Parts: sequence; C-alpha cells; structure tokens
Amino acid sequence: MSRVIRVTLWNEFRHERKADHPASKVYPEGMHSAIAAHLQKQPDMKVRTATLDEPEHGLTDAVLAETDVLTWWGHMAHNEVSDEIVDKVHKKVLDGMGLIVLHSGHFSKIFRRLMGTTCDLKWREAGEKERLWVIDPSHPITEGLPEYFELPQAEMYGERFDIPQPDELLFISWFQGGEVFRSGCCWHRGRGRVFYFRPGHESYPIYKDANVLKVIENAVRWAAPLNTPAPVFGNYQPLEKL
Amino acid sequence: MSRVIRVTLWNEFRHERKADHPASKVYPEGMHSAIAAHLQKQPDMKVRTATLDEPEHGLTDAVLAETDVLTWWGHMAHNEVSDEIVDKVHKKVLDGMGLIVLHSGHFSKIFRRLMGTTCDLKWREAGEKERLWVIDPSHPITEGLPEYFELPQAEMYGERFDIPQPDELLFISWFQGGEVFRSGCCWHRGRGRVFYFRPGHESYPIYKDANVLKVIENAVRWAAPLNTPAPVFGNYQPLEKL
Amino acid sequence: MSRVIRVTLWNEFRHERKADHPASKVYPEGMHSAIAAHLQKQPDMKVRTATLDEPEHGLTDAVLAETDVLTWWGHMAHNEVSDEIVDKVHKKVLDGMGLIVLHSGHFSKIFRRLMGTTCDLKWREAGEKERLWVIDPSHPITEGLPEYFELPQAEMYGERFDIPQPDELLFISWFQGGEVFRSGCCWHRGRGRVFYFRPGHESYPIYKDANVLKVIENAVRWAAPLNTPAPVFGNYQPLEKL
Amino acid sequence: MSRVIRVTLWNEFRHERKADHPASKVYPEGMHSAIAAHLQKQPDMKVRTATLDEPEHGLTDAVLAETDVLTWWGHMAHNEVSDEIVDKVHKKVLDGMGLIVLHSGHFSKIFRRLMGTTCDLKWREAGEKERLWVIDPSHPITEGLPEYFELPQAEMYGERFDIPQPDELLFISWFQGGEVFRSGCCWHRGRGRVFYFRPGHESYPIYKDANVLKVIENAVRWAAPLNTPAPVFGNYQPLEKL
Repeated sequence: MSRVIRVTLWNEFRHERKADHPASKVYPEGMHSAIAAHLQKQPDMKVRTATLDEPEHGLTDAVLAETDVLTWWGHMAHNEVSDEIVDKVHKKVLDGMGLIVLHSGHFSKIFRRLMGTTCDLKWREAGEKERLWVIDPSHPITEGLPEYFELPQAEMYGERFDIPQPDELLFISWFQGGEVFRSGCCWHRGRGRVFYFRPGHESYPIYKDANVLKVIENAVRWAAPLNTPAPVFGNYQPLEKL
Repeated sequence: MSRVIRVTLWNEFRHERKADHPASKVYPEGMHSAIAAHLQKQPDMKVRTATLDEPEHGLTDAVLAETDVLTWWGHMAHNEVSDEIVDKVHKKVLDGMGLIVLHSGHFSKIFRRLMGTTCDLKWREAGEKERLWVIDPSHPITEGLPEYFELPQAEMYGERFDIPQPDELLFISWFQGGEVFRSGCCWHRGRGRVFYFRPGHESYPIYKDANVLKVIENAVRWAAPLNTPAPVFGNYQPLEKL
Repeated sequence: MSRVIRVTLWNEFRHERKADHPASKVYPEGMHSAIAAHLQKQPDMKVRTATLDEPEHGLTDAVLAETDVLTWWGHMAHNEVSDEIVDKVHKKVLDGMGLIVLHSGHFSKIFRRLMGTTCDLKWREAGEKERLWVIDPSHPITEGLPEYFELPQAEMYGERFDIPQPDELLFISWFQGGEVFRSGCCWHRGRGRVFYFRPGHESYPIYKDANVLKVIENAVRWAAPLNTPAPVFGNYQPLEKL
Repeated sequence: MSRVIRVTLWNEFRHERKADHPASKVYPEGMHSAIAAHLQKQPDMKVRTATLDEPEHGLTDAVLAETDVLTWWGHMAHNEVSDEIVDKVHKKVLDGMGLIVLHSGHFSKIFRRLMGTTCDLKWREAGEKERLWVIDPSHPITEGLPEYFELPQAEMYGERFDIPQPDELLFISWFQGGEVFRSGCCWHRGRGRVFYFRPGHESYPIYKDANVLKVIENAVRWAAPLNTPAPVFGNYQPLEKL
C-alpha cells in the first residue's frame, strides 16, 4: 500500500498555447500543469506530463512502461493522435494501467475504443452553473468530498451520453439550463480500470477547484494497477480427466 | 407486440463447404440454415440469411435496412469481413438493431468493436460435456428453459473471458475438463441490445439442440428494436433561462 | 405474447378521501382509478384495484393468485400495512410477480424489504418544475417516449436516494430547485422484476399526464411474469460421478 | 492510507465446541481463531473476535463502535441471533462498516436483510473438489491470487443462488459433481460495502488455505470504511431560487 503511483498527465495542449484563446490566460502552462501542481503534493504519487506535440505524443514505450495511471485531456485534435499510440495505450489499459478521461476526452480515440459506442452527448458553452451530486457515497473516489459541489461557470454536457452503462455511477450533474449528466463513471476493462470525469473546460479555472482536484487525486488511487492474476488465453489442457 | 421481427442470420459459411471438414456432414446447408429452420416456424419472425462470400457479405444497405435482429457466426475468416460492413453494422446496432453473437463470433470484428476489449478466452476441442446453468430466472431469454441443460459434446471455452461485465448474466457453463464460462451475456449499446451465446461449434449438431434453438429464439425477441426515443446530440439550446 | 396481463393497482387511498385535502379534488376516485382509466384501454391488460382499508388490504390470496403485476402507492400509512401481507407480496415477487413502486412508495415496507436499504431521500413540496431525461434509450420501458418530458408542478425528490445500484437506470430528473434524482430504476429480484418510478404526488394531476401513464403502461409489460425456470433449492444429488 | 483497520470476526462457534463434531478436530479454537491467526499478521489490521454465546453475541455497542469491518460465519443457529443486534449491524453497514459474509452465512439474518431475497441455493456434503476461477482480474480482492485455485474437499453450493445481481462478480466455482456457483460477490449498500465469499465448511480446513485467507485479507481492505460524504435526508430547502 505504501508504493508510489506513477502518474502521467496527458494533455493536447493546443488551446493554452494560442495567445488569443482564453485558455492561455487561465492555464498559461497548460491544464496538465495545474493538475500536476496538485498531484505532486501527494506523497504516494510521482507525476510526469506528456503532450500531443511531443515526439510520439510524449507516450513513448519507455514512458508507458513507467506509467501506472494515465489521465487524458483532448479536444480539437483527437484525430491527430496516432492510431499506433492509441493501440499501445489500449493494450496497456487492458493489462492493468489505470485511465482517467477528462471532459472533452469523451470523444478521444482511446475512450471511444474502450467504450465501443459513439460517446456523443449534448453540449453548450454558456458559462452556466453546474452542481455535481454524489450518487454513491460508498465509493473511494468520493472520499473527502461534500455531498455536492458546484462549479460557478461550466460548459454544459447533457444526456443522452452514449456510453455503456457504467459499472459504478458516482456523480450526476445538474445544469442551470435544464440538463443532467452522468459526470463520474467507472468501468473495468481487462485488468484495468477506467474513470470518466466530466468537469474541465479549458476556459474556466476548473482544474484549480479543490473538489475537482480531490476527485482526480482519488481516481488516481482507485485506478492504480494491482498485482492481480494475469489471465491465460488460448488453447488449454484439461484440468480434469476427460 | 404483434409485429413481425425481421431476422438476418449471418454465417461465415466456409467450414461447411469443405468436403473434408466434419461440418460438411453435420450442416451440409450451413449452420445458418439449421437456425433458420427453427426460427422460420415462429409466427412473429421473418427470416433471411447472409454469408461472407456473397457480395458485400450479403449485408447490403437494403438488407440491413430490413433487418431488425442480426445473428453472427464467424470463425476462420474474421479478418475477411470488410471494415466498411463492420462500420455499417456497428452504426445499425447503436441505432437499435439487435445483435446476437454466436460461439466463435466472440473474436469477430463487430463484437470486439462493441466490447472494446480483446474478447479472448481459453478453448479446447475435445468433445467434452458442457452443462449450462440458468443464473437469472427473471430474464425473458430464459423463458421455457429447464434449470440447466447439457450438450454432450462441445468445444470448451473457459474463463477468463475478456469482456466488459455483462449488464445481465444469464448462463454459466460447467465443463467436464474443469473450467467455467459466462455463456449467456447481455449488453445495452446505444439504442441496441447485444447478446452473446457460447454454444455452437461447427462439428457438433449444437444448432439442432432444442434448448439452444429456444435460447436463440428468445434472444431474437429480446433484442428486437423498439420505438424508443432517438437521442439528440450536439450543440443544444438551454431549456431554462440562463 | 398475446396473453392478457392481470394488473392489480394498489393504493393507500387515504389522502383522496379527506375532503379538506387537495387530493380529494384532483383524484376524487383515487389515484388508482386514474391509472386504471389508462390501463383499462390496453387490449393486453385486465385491471383491478385494491386499497388499504379493504379486508386484507384488498390483497387476499385469491387476488394475489390472479395478479401478474402489482403497482404500489402508499404514503402516510406504510406502517398500517400488515407484515403478513408484506410477506405474501414479497414471496410472490420473488416467484415472478412484477412490482411497480410509485413515488412515496419508496418508503413502503415491501420496497424496503426488497431493497435491503433505508430507501431514504431528500424531499420538498414546492410545486416546482421537474424534467425527466431518458438515460437508456434501449429499454422497453422508454418505448414511445420523447427524449425528455416535463411535469410543471411536482414534489421534489433529491439524491442521495439510498437504494442498491439499479440493474438498469432509465430516467434522471432535473429539479428547478437544484437537485437531481434517479427517477426510473429497474431491479431483478428472484424470478421477479421491480420498477421504481418517481412521479406521483397526490396533490398534482401527475397520473393524468400522458407520458407518466405511458411509462406505467410500458413497465407493466416489462414486469409481467414469464415462463422462466423455477429454481430448485436445497440438498442436491451430484450430476456427475464423484 | 496508513491507518489500521479494526476487524471483528464473528462466529457462531457451536460446531467446534461439540466434541463429536469433526469441526472440533479441525478448528479446536473455532474458525474465527484460524482466520484471526492470519489477519493478525497484517500490519494494517487490528483483530478481535465475537461469538454467538457471548452477551449480546459479543457485538455490544462499544464493540460495534470500534469495528471497521465485520466478518460473519453462522450456520445452525441463525435464528438465535437477536433481531436487535441484526438491526444494529444493518444500520452500521449502511453507515459504512464493511461486511464479509462467509459460506453458510448466506442464510444469516443480516445477509438476507441486506439482499432482500431468500439467498437460497443448492448444497451437498460430499467432500468433493472445488475450483474457484477469477472472473474479474481488475478487482483489488483478487490481488496476489493465481488465475484459479482449488479446494480438494468442499461442500458444494450450486446455482441458482437467489441473490440480487452482484455489483461485481469476482469468482465462479466449478464443482466436481457438475454444478457452478458465484462464489465471490460484491455489493454496495448505503455507504457500506458487502462481500460474500463461499468457501468455508466447518469440517474441512478451508480457513487454513492460503488462497482463502488471502481473499479474506483483501476483502477486509476493500470493505474498510472511507471518509465519504454522509448523505443528508429529509425535507430540504431549494438551492436555487424557485
């Protein structure tokens, strides 16, 4: 239990580098840096970052080999992520690496690959209020949270969210404009665990909110790989006499 | 409730056409024909078949447009199924078409696409006994079945079966050689419903077994599309004043 | 499929008989009568009603023996329902009878018995707007519905709703006052199926709303018992040689 | 994460005290003592035991107040457990205390209360072989286990096991006599987590098996309470202006 979790925070990191985009003001060093600032304070975590425009998107074999949990933020450039890297990440998740998909990452190649559905939804950028309610107060990802928390300005995501029914549903969002959304969803895939967490628009300081950061911190611990049995596949000799 | 369900039985149909393969003796007209013989007797079903070596694998736009439920049997030629057809079938399932994946179809492109995992498993061809236990006697797919049924000679499929946790688990198989398997699994994907059913090796008369045929018949009714709401996706105006 | 479903609509029927209670104006003949008026029009349903103050609460052995699906509305007199009747209903549900629990029935003995939890929640009577979003458009209970529907005046029920995670989550409600609620939930229990449906306050004409009535109608069909295998319990001889 | 988990091992402790019962030879100090011997070695656990014939069954308010996780083994004397104690344990579980129900505890009052079903099953005492397969290798309770493990002599429990569909299904047992069983099942109830684990007949040294003990050890960690939000119930003021 005392081992260190190696976290890699992946970010598309395009919006924040455009001088005329609000994200450049809110996150001059990128959203990944804001999340890193919080996780680096956790004694059980070791944090690195990786971004789209690095070679191999920063996800070289060496980096993946040293990653226990990967977080994913992408938006405008999902299609620029190479299929080869997506294949590698997919394989790693099924082999036990945790994956935390953030906000607009719902449309990333890796999330859609793992879900098998379109992952489509409704959206609106109106800076409206969002209130996230904890639905499952028995789940480790809700540790240390209040019963609900609010984001004063958020992009709206609304149902129908086209995902497989989550294995565990943790948060439901209420939006000022009249919609609801399953904002925190867990799935087991292979030996890996996947968490989708809705908050995170690039133009609002969502990743500086204490509750949002606490959820990501908890999710990293929940998704960290374990020494569980590696399944044997293929042709198999009988264990009993036939 | 009195409407007719249009079923398309898709079969790779390669084993059965090889004169030196046991399947050619057991199913001279193909496994799809054996299943069709049963379903055609159902007053609420209208049955057609389609096979790999037909143009567009028999799954033209016209055929898909007239298909309520598709069954899928493939084995040696999964990779010969064109990605374009898989894309179309995937889209149809998410839009409400039922899909029933049989036996070695666990490795088909369409099933792996929908599941997001490897769908790998253990296997053994030793003609051993399989006993399928009903785990959920509240489910319509178990209608008319006994509490368990046996197949005297079956290929073994063993856990770990690398699938997402089923939304509903209906059957667990016991194998003579010492393994177990989740043999009947339901998932909701988009507006569609997907059922995986394990029995079905090409060299044993599995698709002439009354219980196996009853399960497929029940699954067709369960998976038939309904007049459920079509989700609206994309940019969305607020329903409440902001 | 063409058989008739025998529905018994159970109602506490106290509020409506108090001359000074708004329910006496909205439902002079009781909420059960409003629901009955809709279900009686369905060619596949045969409807009867039963109320708390009848002998054995109207749920005699004879009535239960002829009931395929039971709906339950109770509020102020949950504790007046005899444990003996609850035992009988519980047994019937596990043996296949469908159960549809409405609104304040969340606190009924039978629902709490089946759930194993407190079934507690937040509530507020302020006549505010409720909007129910369809979360699972692959489910038969959503047939014929729009993507969302509204109730202009409703009692608020808010999360945390202390229930076991539903096997299928169909509706999430948005409330004007800022809360959300899992308003349509399915569970399998024994050979029976249970549906909880939130709308239904006694002082608003909720059971005259076309969408609400459609949901109840669909739920009756979904919950109707099937000819599924009756499990064998107890001491059991081996099926294989030991 | 470094805190100590306070475990209370509850045992009926009747079989073992009968000189003519095989259990008195296998577990002269009781099954609870065998489990305690393993858990006491864990640096993150503090273990105590409690038995039926102690005052208040050893589960006084003081003991319960200091219990993070409770394990439960009962068989012949389920009905001697007082309803008052069951009420207290039930309340504690919903408030976050972990509960691990072992073997014949499937028929205990507390397990049936939490499940809402009969929890009935098939059984046979023939000392046959059981093989437990890991079904979900992404779950912390499977940590450190092989892909399957065997018990050379076990009582058989067979499906249909009348429980609600588990939130997570971890083990399926294969029995020599031809049956299967869902042997490791997880549920969330209230703020608490419940694990049912099948192995454990009183006449075989099941609780001296390294894999069985490892599962119980893992389950204790999984079920330990967390600092999750305590839900607020009852009448509630609006968070938004109505």
